Amino acid sequence: MDIYLFFVFLAACVGAGATGAVFPPGAWYKTLNKPDWTPPDWVFPVAWTTIYLLISFAGARVGMLEGSAYALAFWAMQGAFATLWSPVFFGLRRLKGALLIMAPLWIAVLGATISMFKLDILAGLAFMPYLVWVTVAAALNASVARLNPDVVPVDLSKA
Amino acid sequence: MDIYLFFVFLAACVGAGATGAVFPPGAWYKTLNKPDWTPPDWVFPVAWTTIYLLISFAGARVGMLEGSAYALAFWAMQGAFATLWSPVFFGLRRLKGALLIMAPLWIAVLGATISMFKLDILAGLAFMPYLVWVTVAAALNASVARLNPDVVPVDLSKA
Repeated sequence: MDIYLFFVFLAACVGAGATGAVFPPGAWYKTLNKPDWTPPDWVFPVAWTTIYLLISFAGARVGMLEGSAYALAFWAMQGAFATLWSPVFFGLRRLKGALLIMAPLWIAVLGATISMFKLDILAGLAFMPYLVWVTVAAALNASVARLNPDVVPVDLSKA
Repeated sequence: MDIYLFFVFLAACVGAGATGAVFPPGAWYKTLNKPDWTPPDWVFPVAWTTIYLLISFAGARVGMLEGSAYALAFWAMQGAFATLWSPVFFGLRRLKGALLIMAPLWIAVLGATISMFKLDILAGLAFMPYLVWVTVAAALNASVARLNPDVVPVDLSKA
């Protein structure tokens, strides 16, 4: 594995992760109705940090293999949609809009996972927690949107 | 060039571009002091659309070549930071915070451009407009931050 390549992927994850830091859950999120199975707050940063380290490893591991183009293209795709989600959910409070973003994010993670497995077992396994997590996150987003139909989106034009 | 690969990269660009659609400039941006050389509003969506098509082409073109890992890792890195910029600038109105994001974005685009040129002249050329544009955008961000020291960031905790 190329360690410098790992750090370029990790830098991409820092960009994606920064979105969660600048658009944190905050007091508003606490007031929302949530399903019983909602993970406690501390799980989210732990899960994302673990996932970002694992997928940077997977990217660096397959990057040097021939035929890794789809794996890395899906990798790039998940990065953009993962970055987009937090500002829409926590920033604009558009719960259904955020759910719409979950669809291409889930497809990108599934595409990356399958492409990784075709190239390298370890890289595929390194993407599995992300696939599980994004499935849980999408279900949570859907449930929160359903349980909180009266949330008023933030209107930036009035800010 | 693999056309399906092109569309995966383009899907990533749709994610990055959506950030500009959900966090548009709006009335607030019009009130800001801007340097004389600020491009007119219509230039921005045209520039981004052109850039996204060109870099999707570049990604698909080098993806199948051996040794494209760094080019695609930097490609992924630019996608995350490009997605992050609009919510911070137009959403939170953190002009200096957005300028901080321009640094890794510029590095990612430079890294991608150099890596692309090493693999394929056309792919490198396809990244050149992006390198020029992100340099202009960073200069514009810096200038707007300097000319508008009194902008109050949006405090989401009070929304």
